[in-house]
Amino acid sequence: MAQPLILHGMNSPNVTKVVLMLEECGLEYELRHVAVFKQEQFNPEFLKLNPLGKVPVLQDPDHGVTIAESGAILHYLAEREGKFLPAAQPARAEVMQWLFMQMANFGPLLGQLNHFRLVLASGTEPYAEARYAAAAEKLYRLLDERMSDREWIAGGDYSIADMAMQPWANYLEPHGFDSALYPALVRWRAAVASRPAVQRALARSHEGFTAIAEATRKAASGEDLDKFFGRTDAVPPADFSAVVKM
Amino acid sequence: MAQPLILHGMNSPNVTKVVLMLEECGLEYELRHVAVFKQEQFNPEFLKLNPLGKVPVLQDPDHGVTIAESGAILHYLAEREGKFLPAAQPARAEVMQWLFMQMANFGPLLGQLNHFRLVLASGTEPYAEARYAAAAEKLYRLLDERMSDREWIAGGDYSIADMAMQPWANYLEPHGFDSALYPALVRWRAAVASRPAVQRALARSHEGFTAIAEATRKAASGEDLDKFFGRTDAVPPADFSAVVKM
Repeated sequence: MAQPLILHGMNSPNVTKVVLMLEECGLEYELRHVAVFKQEQFNPEFLKLNPLGKVPVLQDPDHGVTIAESGAILHYLAEREGKFLPAAQPARAEVMQWLFMQMANFGPLLGQLNHFRLVLASGTEPYAEARYAAAAEKLYRLLDERMSDREWIAGGDYSIADMAMQPWANYLEPHGFDSALYPALVRWRAAVASRPAVQRALARSHEGFTAIAEATRKAASGEDLDKFFGRTDAVPPADFSAVVKM
Repeated sequence: MAQPLILHGMNSPNVTKVVLMLEECGLEYELRHVAVFKQEQFNPEFLKLNPLGKVPVLQDPDHGVTIAESGAILHYLAEREGKFLPAAQPARAEVMQWLFMQMANFGPLLGQLNHFRLVLASGTEPYAEARYAAAAEKLYRLLDERMSDREWIAGGDYSIADMAMQPWANYLEPHGFDSALYPALVRWRAAVASRPAVQRALARSHEGFTAIAEATRKAASGEDLDKFFGRTDAVPPADFSAVVKM
């Protein structure tokens, strides 16, 4: 009998992506909360699962696979199930391009805006905040233009590229943008949200993560939270005096 | 007869990755320089190839594929050629994890340190510089630890994960770190550099890109260069007053 998959995570866009895929594929899985606010991701046991100390991590006991990085997990599940990633070119390449575009651009750059606009008070670091606000605006605009003449992001059908992108597209308003200016993005985002598998995924994620994450966040010290959010000034290693200018 | 592949790019780590793979696979290809210092990547013709306006882009005329994002291109070529990405699990998942780790962590975060430490004068934005210096230190350390007990990054053999990571690992010293503190990283980096295909790739890249890139950089206006490096203060869109705090 097949053993359930195990997803290590918490409430975050990168974890939600994977829950969307697990539900779309109808797979059996168990959610294991990682108390990131209490540094559990840096415990030796967790670092064995992912040396980078980040969620999500998926374990597939039947296939002897433990895999981190949400994009890699989506690709793994798509190949395992033969779903949501076209087999034929050029559709397959198009989905992979947009999956990597999310992982290498939208995720990291919107993540920096989270830091400078939401974790820090807006206005604390004006140069960096403006830098990442401009980057975010460009990316939200790209996504809006992309969705202006198609139903799904890439390859014709709903795919892992949509699943990767949609949880991040929810930051549009928290990042301070007027959603009325991004109508195609908003329509597509709602179309994803209305899928039964997405609704099941959000319910499972809420049940498995929300209450316990909130409890650990409340139990975390100020120092824990500063460390999690990277809110303290990082101390550069001693050899930084040797900085070479371009 | 097979038509050569076309790689649009310039001298940069993300383009070099793809040249490494093309040489390792012994493929016929043509390099087309994109004058990024002169905003050529935002010309309508280039935006048809990649709406994000970034290099590299690979065109494969025989298969009707045009693909952007260096990680997606490496994955595409690996599947096309059946090389440098294992077919069997768990090796395949391990290579994909490290490929995504490079694309979603090393590339974007080292790229931010490039901006705050090398493009801006070091010390201009101390908070952001320290933030990305700490992130870079953690990533270089992770790579050094990873390479302390193995020959290649993932999956047992030399793979697209090594090709993706090595051009970025060359930033260790320009970023101001003491290479003596990262001996396993340095040993692995040199092992990649000594491969005949890597040496051919660097020669091709030099021949195809270096002189013309330098000439266009010299011909670029101060405004062009500021725009390319993101060195001017970005102007936030008007609706940023609606910022929602977390």
